[in-house]
Amino acid sequence: MAGDVAAAWTAVERLGRERRPDGSPPWSIRPLFAADPARFARFSRRGGDLLLDFSKTAIDQRALSALLALAEAAGVEAWRDAMARGEAVNATEGRRALHMALRAPQGAVPANGGPEVAAEIQATLARMAAFTRAVHAGAMRSAGGEPFAQVLNIGIGGSDLGPAMAYQALAGPDSPLPVRYLSNVDGHAWRELLPSLDPRRLLVLIASKTFTTQETMANARLVKAWLAEALGGEDRAAQHLVALSSNLSACAAFGIPPERVFAFGDYIGGRFSLWSAIGLSLALGLGWERFAALLAGARRMDEHFLTAPLAENLPVLLALVEVWHVNALGLRRRAVLPYDERLRRLPAHLQQLEMESLGKRVSLAGEPLARHSGPVVFGEPGTSAQHSFMQLLHQGSEPVPADVILIARPDHPWRRQHLILLAHGLAQTEALLSGRDADSLRAEMMRAGAGPAEIERLLPHRVLPGERPSVTILLPRLDPTTLGQLIALYEHKVAVLGALWGINPFDQWGVELGKQLAAPLLEELESGRPDPARHDASTLGLLEEILRLQREA
Amino acid sequence: MAGDVAAAWTAVERLGRERRPDGSPPWSIRPLFAADPARFARFSRRGGDLLLDFSKTAIDQRALSALLALAEAAGVEAWRDAMARGEAVNATEGRRALHMALRAPQGAVPANGGPEVAAEIQATLARMAAFTRAVHAGAMRSAGGEPFAQVLNIGIGGSDLGPAMAYQALAGPDSPLPVRYLSNVDGHAWRELLPSLDPRRLLVLIASKTFTTQETMANARLVKAWLAEALGGEDRAAQHLVALSSNLSACAAFGIPPERVFAFGDYIGGRFSLWSAIGLSLALGLGWERFAALLAGARRMDEHFLTAPLAENLPVLLALVEVWHVNALGLRRRAVLPYDERLRRLPAHLQQLEMESLGKRVSLAGEPLARHSGPVVFGEPGTSAQHSFMQLLHQGSEPVPADVILIARPDHPWRRQHLILLAHGLAQTEALLSGRDADSLRAEMMRAGAGPAEIERLLPHRVLPGERPSVTILLPRLDPTTLGQLIALYEHKVAVLGALWGINPFDQWGVELGKQLAAPLLEELESGRPDPARHDASTLGLLEEILRLQREA
Repeated sequence: MAGDVAAAWTAVERLGRERRPDGSPPWSIRPLFAADPARFARFSRRGGDLLLDFSKTAIDQRALSALLALAEAAGVEAWRDAMARGEAVNATEGRRALHMALRAPQGAVPANGGPEVAAEIQATLARMAAFTRAVHAGAMRSAGGEPFAQVLNIGIGGSDLGPAMAYQALAGPDSPLPVRYLSNVDGHAWRELLPSLDPRRLLVLIASKTFTTQETMANARLVKAWLAEALGGEDRAAQHLVALSSNLSACAAFGIPPERVFAFGDYIGGRFSLWSAIGLSLALGLGWERFAALLAGARRMDEHFLTAPLAENLPVLLALVEVWHVNALGLRRRAVLPYDERLRRLPAHLQQLEMESLGKRVSLAGEPLARHSGPVVFGEPGTSAQHSFMQLLHQGSEPVPADVILIARPDHPWRRQHLILLAHGLAQTEALLSGRDADSLRAEMMRAGAGPAEIERLLPHRVLPGERPSVTILLPRLDPTTLGQLIALYEHKVAVLGALWGINPFDQWGVELGKQLAAPLLEELESGRPDPARHDASTLGLLEEILRLQREA
Repeated sequence: MAGDVAAAWTAVERLGRERRPDGSPPWSIRPLFAADPARFARFSRRGGDLLLDFSKTAIDQRALSALLALAEAAGVEAWRDAMARGEAVNATEGRRALHMALRAPQGAVPANGGPEVAAEIQATLARMAAFTRAVHAGAMRSAGGEPFAQVLNIGIGGSDLGPAMAYQALAGPDSPLPVRYLSNVDGHAWRELLPSLDPRRLLVLIASKTFTTQETMANARLVKAWLAEALGGEDRAAQHLVALSSNLSACAAFGIPPERVFAFGDYIGGRFSLWSAIGLSLALGLGWERFAALLAGARRMDEHFLTAPLAENLPVLLALVEVWHVNALGLRRRAVLPYDERLRRLPAHLQQLEMESLGKRVSLAGEPLARHSGPVVFGEPGTSAQHSFMQLLHQGSEPVPADVILIARPDHPWRRQHLILLAHGLAQTEALLSGRDADSLRAEMMRAGAGPAEIERLLPHRVLPGERPSVTILLPRLDPTTLGQLIALYEHKVAVLGALWGINPFDQWGVELGKQLAAPLLEELESGRPDPARHDASTLGLLEEILRLQREA
């Protein structure tokens, strides 16, 4: 089996280096379209409401076969099923990865951790639904007896990015309650939010699994003190607080009774947690029905992922495209370009989901990886991105594969705006592929009246090489159901890449050291006395300079 | 000279490949600190109010000398001076790059394009100041005779990102007028802004140099129609409009008279234009004095850039660090981590500034580049980023150099929040450098009571390799003066990299093709009739699928 995997890797990597039988280079895409009129149909797939088009990559039938053989050799299906069955696939932490159980329909969870997990999840969902309805109905009220009119979610990382992204995507004029998100420990973040908040009608969610996350608790204390000041005491402030946490005793010590604590098991990782109690801000901000539809959408992708053959399986194919780019072609940066302003925080969510999951350097067995793992992910919405960094995608010294996300139908009445948006999204994928050759440019410039010397001088600057890969994901519209599918698609892509690269996509040991080192630095900043023995000369020098600048003020 | 440059490149690239005389690998950093107690002092520099610390990179004295020799051989100083003198350094477009002239003090502009340019710029600045004061004083009024209470800036790319970033960074409780920014042609962007806007008191700035940018003009027409509907006619709507544009006749045709048009010359590139009329939203939103202080801050960095020797010159050094990472060590991704929530759009601005300027594949002479140019730039504010993609920076399969931006003094009263923020920023640079070795981890885990088998199983997952480079930029506080310096630092870094790589950092030919291809696609989307002869099978297939989904609704 290990030998099979090694051979399968070798086959994929060789295809990325060697010319094809027709003589075309392995990264070229245009010859594939020229050779196969049915290429679009052959290299695009449907799953749920989504269409995934990966025909604008250099993957041909041989490469796809080699990639699928790798997926088989690496045991992607067995890994997927082990995850679904509730095995401890997060091996380094001895934990299960049961985010699929969060959206499994009631009564239909033979797998996903078994009946106890299902019961726990359903009980929490039922409490969340009842709480949400009580808040919306005005049955759950503020210390002053008023209905709550605003929600503030305090959380960081997985307790912030997923919900904040989905709220941004789905909130509209009809949403029941406005939600604001406070993540950064930087006091400027709180200062910016303050003027828009009314403490008398503000419901505050404190989202931290352990209830010890330093940044979140510092912000929670700040906000609680502000509420206490405005409302007349800590007890009254506490009536505005809700905890999304598994640490009941810490919540109680903070003044939050168990009936206002919504928990989730250690089988839910932060970056996969928006479907859990961590999503309460979504239920409050969008309405319970829309939150339930988000879960149902994710479930739809789960079912596709769990049942579709590898060659038809969207998350598997998206993962294989990444392997092709990272490992066969050596392209270790990827752009995410949602052509929808409502998805403007999707790149940030995917940065966390993908880079935290796949930014690993040892295998599950603890061996150094033989090849590269997760790429850098970045992005901004189109068309704005076209007027910014897209220049580098077209003419940079190295291709940057892009995920282009298009939404067929808008939720606004300005049809022409939407068609302009879609035209540009399509045109970018077309331009990245086709490029612009010297002959057609020369002809165009001659028609425009340019002289031969000017034409020859400018030509090299205006030529676009093309052959730059993109993947397009098309959604009929953006609603809770399709967004749920889209997010789950990327979640499962990450899990598949874990299996392909042989890494644990569910842990994040690399972030511990920074937290540890921050503690003594905080003491030194507070006392104003740096400890030279503790630091390298740079950190010490910066610390001293900061203290000097602070004294100067 | 060309031979000198080639030799200088060879020297730099060789240092990136070969072990150092002491046997350490060329990418290692810790041995440099061990060998040189004065490393921090030796590899950090001050310029204006900024401190640049590049000691946490693998650049040693030999590498710095080689890099400085490259800067000399590549003629960085001559290029800088040619730019300042107003030569057509944007050679492919035959244009000057005179953004420094925008912030040159009155009467002190012998260079920078000469007296005519200075007069033009001073005249526009004087008109901007008078207009700003008239709006703030209520002398410039709405169609209904009310003082304006809100500003909307409609622009995209350079007409949006720079001003939006600086407004986000500098607006506070005392700011005179709230400004909103509308960039994306996506109607959802406009739909989201609508509820916060009062047409009776809204001043609208339409920012497009040519006044033909498709997205901006589509949004401008939408907003003008909405104003006309609310205010009772196009003429009344036009009284709320201002243009930031060089196309006076198009502005007039749109109903904007010359006295409400603020122009800027073709010697100002979009991504360098926030100091020009394009910055009017900043003057209105922050107050004239603070806009003037922003210009003065940039000027301070200009003076440093124009006068400091190469080895002391912050923009030059920052550019050389990038060359070291991209070309000597092959690291073609860079993270920007501002530890200040107010700077959360700085990464997006730098993405445009750097990737649009440096995403090039041919030299000024039109030859294919022999080496890589601009890297991918991405980022989010710390500490939030630590709970997201920083895992990959610590344990990913390849280092990602980071720019860490720290602000010594906050503009809020919550001291402890700020110290936590700074402690984490410093700790990240320390952790990236030091890593965590197996022995100290083993000892820690034993103290925590872990058994030997568990320790050995987990150890490889918890080890951090360290030796990951970062650069720290320290500002005393964030205000218009220091932000001006920071932005200008990156602007000049980009110009220097243009000289080092031998490319034109001021053009962006690569973005033209997508615009051209969008036009027929828009026609096909509007008519519902795709033209198969025009497109590859993928673009055609997606177009047909979009049309099918739209008919389905």
